Amino acid sequence: MRLSASKVFLIVLLETNYDKQLIFEMANFSSIPSPSDELIRLVADARKAASFLGQATNEQRQLALFKVAEALESFKDEIVAANLEDLERSESESLSPALMSRLKLDLIKLGDAIEGVRTVAALPDPLGKRDLHRELDMGLVLERISVPLGVIGVIFEARPDALIQIASLAIRSGNGVLLKGGSEASLTNKILVKAIHQGILKSDIDYKSVGLLTTRQESMGLLHLDGLVDLIIPRGSNELVRYIKDNTRIPVLGHADGICHLYVDEKANLDKALRILIDSKTQYPAACNAVETLLIHQKIAKSFLNIAVPKLEELGVYLLGDGLSQKYGVSESACDNDWSSEYLDLKLSIKIVPDLKIALDHISRYGSRHTEAIVTEDPEIAKVFIKSVDSAGVFHNCSTRFADGFRYGFGAELGISTQTLPPRGPVGLEGLVTYRYQLQGDGHIAADYASGIKNFTHVDL
Amino acid sequence: MRLSASKVFLIVLLETNYDKQLIFEMANFSSIPSPSDELIRLVADARKAASFLGQATNEQRQLALFKVAEALESFKDEIVAANLEDLERSESESLSPALMSRLKLDLIKLGDAIEGVRTVAALPDPLGKRDLHRELDMGLVLERISVPLGVIGVIFEARPDALIQIASLAIRSGNGVLLKGGSEASLTNKILVKAIHQGILKSDIDYKSVGLLTTRQESMGLLHLDGLVDLIIPRGSNELVRYIKDNTRIPVLGHADGICHLYVDEKANLDKALRILIDSKTQYPAACNAVETLLIHQKIAKSFLNIAVPKLEELGVYLLGDGLSQKYGVSESACDNDWSSEYLDLKLSIKIVPDLKIALDHISRYGSRHTEAIVTEDPEIAKVFIKSVDSAGVFHNCSTRFADGFRYGFGAELGISTQTLPPRGPVGLEGLVTYRYQLQGDGHIAADYASGIKNFTHVDL
Repeated sequence: MRLSASKVFLIVLLETNYDKQLIFEMANFSSIPSPSDELIRLVADARKAASFLGQATNEQRQLALFKVAEALESFKDEIVAANLEDLERSESESLSPALMSRLKLDLIKLGDAIEGVRTVAALPDPLGKRDLHRELDMGLVLERISVPLGVIGVIFEARPDALIQIASLAIRSGNGVLLKGGSEASLTNKILVKAIHQGILKSDIDYKSVGLLTTRQESMGLLHLDGLVDLIIPRGSNELVRYIKDNTRIPVLGHADGICHLYVDEKANLDKALRILIDSKTQYPAACNAVETLLIHQKIAKSFLNIAVPKLEELGVYLLGDGLSQKYGVSESACDNDWSSEYLDLKLSIKIVPDLKIALDHISRYGSRHTEAIVTEDPEIAKVFIKSVDSAGVFHNCSTRFADGFRYGFGAELGISTQTLPPRGPVGLEGLVTYRYQLQGDGHIAADYASGIKNFTHVDL
Repeated sequence: MRLSASKVFLIVLLETNYDKQLIFEMANFSSIPSPSDELIRLVADARKAASFLGQATNEQRQLALFKVAEALESFKDEIVAANLEDLERSESESLSPALMSRLKLDLIKLGDAIEGVRTVAALPDPLGKRDLHRELDMGLVLERISVPLGVIGVIFEARPDALIQIASLAIRSGNGVLLKGGSEASLTNKILVKAIHQGILKSDIDYKSVGLLTTRQESMGLLHLDGLVDLIIPRGSNELVRYIKDNTRIPVLGHADGICHLYVDEKANLDKALRILIDSKTQYPAACNAVETLLIHQKIAKSFLNIAVPKLEELGVYLLGDGLSQKYGVSESACDNDWSSEYLDLKLSIKIVPDLKIALDHISRYGSRHTEAIVTEDPEIAKVFIKSVDSAGVFHNCSTRFADGFRYGFGAELGISTQTLPPRGPVGLEGLVTYRYQLQGDGHIAADYASGIKNFTHVDL
């Protein structure tokens, strides 16, 4: 008796063995710790579970997310209590106010995060999309189908609500995920993952698709496992991203510095420019898409700073500027280091430039290719700016704060990638899938085409 | 007088300075040599030239390629003569026959390569494509536009015709390219780049878009320049790819081992299976998409090997098998190492499996996620195979040798990526572009949406 296809498949996955020796052979770095037995087991389990998850139907993955949302709701009080403990301990350890505010997960933030899980469930299925369908020759048909990446490792700092978001995105896109949060959020993260597991258990999905790493040793060990992990997403400082890139062969989705620039052109509407500047700098200064450097065309510098300096100072923005801008009311002097600093704070460096060219030079030299904006009423100048600036986001007459997956309409955001290769900029579900080429023939061989007996038709279907 | 937009832009690029100190700060590896002054100059020049090239029109890039093709034609004799010198030197240095055959660039191969340049010119423009056009709110419009990556570093071995192909793909896609070929092809590569430069000089493109690195020191130094180089494509051994991944922060398009499998199912048409096996193994055994391991369902193993062994031996294929297959005529015994070997030669390892599950296990354990094929007349079994195998290419009833950019209809191929993230599988022009988000507003600020004064519409246009 032949087993049914789905049964055969089930057995395959349940019994697949991950050879530890094989994995160790892959890991030949000396500077970072080797993965422990438990870590390899955890990751191998996640991979096995992910293989199921990747084959689950859209409805099965959606149901899992609804169950996760329900479970998080029923764990609400325990989660907030655990977070309070994390907050108290972190306060006694003098965590910075910025990190404290990111760490905090109260009922409101948690409610938003749970709502986010349902939003992710409602997003269009990113899997099984066919973006290429081509007859190579009669009876030889190629398809390119979107499939999950496999297993993703996410290393993030502070924000426990990020854990909820990342886990939902992973489940929605059929990927296993290994989460490593900061130690400051350890209790919160633990209870969050417990709740998520309880939710998944009420669905057809294997709860081991979501794994929590608790030690730094583990997250470093993860970097070795390029046979089991397909993508590492570090959400943290530029240093963290660089360290990880330097210590792994696994592709890294880099969420690095955001040194964003706003250029106020001589043809700018100054009211519009001020409005955009205030928003870009102060609406949420800790965000990577907040502006760090203001460039102003010298012809309008005086009149613009006349209105901008008092307003910025009123809002508590600490201003540093070049020589000329100091003449127009900026009190402190900016040093070279300021131009390449991501303040993430109510702090702004200001430079007056003779023309667009120097502004573009400055951006090319000091920018991090995240998001830059120009304010001008001259469409030609705007066009040059948009064509020349090689950043993930290039904006005209609007705030840099729009560089965000939610605002772009992606429904959710994994992070913002400052690398050049896709996924670039705000990354939503799209960044968690890849594709597979499926070719269906009927005894077709390449020799027939090499010899000229047959010819490719290459007709898109 | 205000300069015209295009003039402003021209000046910007001509005078952009690349700060050597800044670049050095980025480079903190100790194990590989630091980039020399000349290398930094060469790469910075390529980046500046690439910035022009990326803004060139479709027609300008096409014209450059036609001029390159003409120049290569006029240099034909010099190229073949240089290649003969390389061949003679390499023969005296006992280069392997496989590499010698790759190194050889005779008039026929060169003619094909030049024809390839024209083919690439005729491919649809990969730049300026808009794949997202969305109104975020009234007057706030988001576009996602395909743009070049910037500068690509390609490190390849032996094959000088690859240089021609890579350079054309780079120009077509608006990217600068730095080429480092094997020392065995040094004279051929030098004259090829000379010809390419002469061709480009007859167009509007800056010839410095294409740079040749001549020493290993230079190619290693290149790995430091993550501020100037956007993608490294190593075309060579798995070891080369790994070494490069371990020593750079620049994303690497990995063209690693191809340990491809052919699984002959119990429901296979044996004639079809034999035809596909012969093609997959012998049509060009040095290719990464050639089959290295044959898996056979035990129920048809005897009858299949009865016809396959004599045919394979007749074609000079050296066979190694597991215990059972040796009973059916395979003369040599395969060791564990054989299952993970990319022979790139007329050599095949054979394993008899009790069912599909064990075949899939074997592929999951030893495969390199390149291309796997199944031969079966049972569509259900084929479906399970296609769903379960997590390789860039999963084929049914056709040769693995179809896993190729030309055969897929991409017009040209940069390499085959065995990484999970896109670009995956055969990579054509698509793999050399990224995208940029362009947002056009009229004083729009994020605070209005955060406060609820305004709401996003998110309407795709």
